[in-house]
Order: sequence, then C-alpha cells, then structure tokens
Amino acid sequence: MRYLVKVSYNGNKFYGFQYQKNARTVQDEIERVLNRMHKEFVRIHPAGRTDAGVHAVEQYFHFDSGIDIPADKWKFAMNSGLPADILVREVQRISDDYHVRFHSSGKAYRYRIYQGKDRDPFQNGLKVHYPYPLDEQKMRDAMQYFTGTHDFTSFSSAKTAIENKVRHIYRFDLIKTEDGYDFVIIGSGFLYNMVRILVAYVLEVGQGRWDGARTPEILKAKDRKRVPKTAPAEGLYLERVFLNREALEKTLEEMKNGLEKH
Amino acid sequence: MRYLVKVSYNGNKFYGFQYQKNARTVQDEIERVLNRMHKEFVRIHPAGRTDAGVHAVEQYFHFDSGIDIPADKWKFAMNSGLPADILVREVQRISDDYHVRFHSSGKAYRYRIYQGKDRDPFQNGLKVHYPYPLDEQKMRDAMQYFTGTHDFTSFSSAKTAIENKVRHIYRFDLIKTEDGYDFVIIGSGFLYNMVRILVAYVLEVGQGRWDGARTPEILKAKDRKRVPKTAPAEGLYLERVFLNREALEKTLEEMKNGLEKH
Repeated sequence: MRYLVKVSYNGNKFYGFQYQKNARTVQDEIERVLNRMHKEFVRIHPAGRTDAGVHAVEQYFHFDSGIDIPADKWKFAMNSGLPADILVREVQRISDDYHVRFHSSGKAYRYRIYQGKDRDPFQNGLKVHYPYPLDEQKMRDAMQYFTGTHDFTSFSSAKTAIENKVRHIYRFDLIKTEDGYDFVIIGSGFLYNMVRILVAYVLEVGQGRWDGARTPEILKAKDRKRVPKTAPAEGLYLERVFLNREALEKTLEEMKNGLEKH
Repeated sequence: MRYLVKVSYNGNKFYGFQYQKNARTVQDEIERVLNRMHKEFVRIHPAGRTDAGVHAVEQYFHFDSGIDIPADKWKFAMNSGLPADILVREVQRISDDYHVRFHSSGKAYRYRIYQGKDRDPFQNGLKVHYPYPLDEQKMRDAMQYFTGTHDFTSFSSAKTAIENKVRHIYRFDLIKTEDGYDFVIIGSGFLYNMVRILVAYVLEVGQGRWDGARTPEILKAKDRKRVPKTAPAEGLYLERVFLNREALEKTLEEMKNGLEKH
C-alpha cells in the first residue's frame, strides 16, 4: 500500500529535509518513527527538499507499507513518535503509481519579514528582521516582471546540475502584515535558492538600491552574478504543494476572485 | 559608573540565565560581549535568574563600568555583539547603591498555553500545547485563593534553601487568547518553580481532576507532595520587573482601572 502524508515542520532546528550523516534532518526523524513501526527500513519520498532552517506549513511525502490501518491511526501513531517540531496533519492511501514529486503540479512559498528598529527575540528563526525602509510600490512594480514563463538562471543558485532553468510563475504577491511583509509566490517549480534570491532582489529594489525597471534585462542576462544576494533561510515557508492540476487551478481561481484570504 | 540594562530573551536555546560550565546561558552571552568591550571581566547582576527554556520579555541586570558613553551607544554596542535571541532594549545610568535584585519591588510573569487537537510546530518552545478541555470558571475560582499573603510551601520546589516561603500575590489573572489562555501573575517575589507549579495546579482544576475549593486546605498543609506537577518551562515569560514601589503601584492601579490591555 502507498500512503501520502501531509506534514508541517519548524525548520529552525533541522539541517534541512534530506538525510545527512551526523545532522538532524526531517527525513531522519520521520524514517526513524516508520522504521520502528515496520521493524524494517522504510524510505520516504517528499514533494521536494527544503534547506536548513526552511519551514514547511504543508509538505507531502509518500511511502510504501505492508501495514493496513486507518488514516487516523497512522496520524496518531506517527505523531506519538515525532518530536514537537514536526506534525503529521493528514494521512491518506493513494494509488501505487502516484509519486508526489513527479505528479504534483506546483508549489506555493511564503517569505516573511518584520520591520521595526529592534529585532524581536521571539520572532527569531520564524521571520527575518528587516529594519530598512521599503517602498511598497517599487517592490510591486518589480515583482510583476517575474510572473509568466522565464529562464531564472540569474535568480537561482549556480550550484545546481539542472540544465533547464525555465519555470512558470503564476503569482507573486506582496502582503502587508502587522509588522512587515509576506511575499507569496506560486509556481510550476522552483530552482535551488530561487525564492530566497528573488526576495533578496525585491528587497534591494524596495530599499532603492536597485532599479526595478531593469528586471527584464537581468532576466535576459542569465547570469547569477547579476543578483548576488540570497535572503536567509529562516524567513522561508513551503506553504502549499498542489497535488494535481485541479488543486492548482482551483487555488489560482480562488485567489483571482479574492476568495482566499492571507 | 553603574548601568541598568533592560533585556529580552527567547529562552528556547539557553540553559537558563545563570552561568554554567559548558552550557549556553544568557549571562554567559552578555558577559562575553561586556568583557570584549572592557578588555577585563565584568560581572552582571540580574533581577533574578530564569530556568532553562524560560523566556523574558523584560529582565533587568546591572553592572559597573569605567566606560562613560551615552545610553544609546551602549544599547547599539551590546546588540551588535549579542546573538539574535537576546535583545538589549534600554540602558540607563543609575546610582551606585542601586541593586536591582534587592531594590526592585516585585515581578510579573505570564504563562502561555494554546489549545486545539494538534500541536503547532511553529509555537513549539513559545507556548505549551494543552489539548484537554478546560472549565474557565473553575480555574478563575481556584486562582482567587492565591491572591494575598500566603505560605507557598505547597506550591514551590522542595529543592530550595530559602526558609521563608511567605509571598504576597497582588493579582493572578486568566486571559482568554485567540487559541488558548495566558495566566498573568504579579507578586512581591516568587519561590523556585512557583509559577509553573501554580499553573499546573490550576490546569488540573480546569480539567476537573482537582477540586479548586480545596485550595485553602492545600495551602495550609505546606506540603509540596500535595501538588505534584510542574508546568513546562517553555510557556513561562518573565514579563515585568518593577524597579521600585511606585512602578508596581502604578501598574496595579492601571490594571484595576482596566487601562492596561493584555
């Protein structure tokens, strides 16, 4: 049987999702619990990896199991064994040929910053402190250049073996919060560090240090050296994984109609 | 010159306030920064210690220094050297005979719990998950027995050398929050683990496992074994240190008149 699991985690005390020798990772903690239940090694397959410090409000993974118990029992059993910074939200059986990484249709990420002169020790690890003044209109103007289909070579880490750097961005929204801004981006897929580089760039534009009107030129240059910064991991949340085309389209439609609140 | 410093810290990654060998403590981080500035050892004296995992919205300490720079410069210099989970909020010069531990007139603590079936990985370390149903009236009824002057032997850790366990509690309030409750307690002073034992007890009463009407009898027994639980450290915040009698009375007056919002 193949099970699909929806999970949340606070990335603060993890060296990312993927297994690493001698480092605490999300995969490690989850597989430890599954191994104990199955009395044999069980491998989990996530929708995608997240880096050290990056959070997930919604992440999915699937695994194969000979154990046939109801979804609620799975959830309870897994949560009983997991640490407080990981939560299994939902377990469902899926068809044996569904592979969440290959069959999902996109993702949404949120990046959170707070402003104000002093940093806040209680937001440490959950939002990034950005004390510099920001021009909201300049940020919005620059952000619109990224929607649509583009080669994101200039806005992704050079440390990647992936050849095709063309991705489709459906939305890139700026949301004013109580004490700062959230950036919410929905795309077909994302390159390594892409969201953190995009956010770092938009913040530079908002500070007036970069001219947002030059964004199309930077995209065209396909040169990572043009945009040197990467925003810190701790502000980044994997917020949604769209399991199929319909889920993605439904969300985009709802957002267009202003039905989805942030 | 004697300086008084107001500081906040997220207790999550600290083994408490006080210096300990081979463990990260708040005192350790602050003294490290001061030692670097003074090129000699500088000892800090806090209003009181906090345990491992306990937070401070407002904690004070004082130290003596030969460096004569304005308060704002002190704040900036210290924050530049401190980690993201400690923030210096204010520095002021005080008279050389003021000792914050002996001359302050009381403290306020806040204890935060959240309810709901599932734990929340993003509140981990900041609030305590309490999924059991609570009877608000039962809690309020029990809490009123603690205001006034009482011997708190039954509600403090037996591991303490302090002989006099009589303390005066000015207020003990229950505040309904978005997802749970905050307990706010103001007193002349607190015994070791006292707030965490009081909260654990009130939660047992709220769950219906203890009869709150028996509280006076338990106080009278002066027996720690009567109240076995201690609520986890991570929900506890040192919220105010009243530097003198006037500050305490002003706050109590404002709260009585409902001017102070929570």
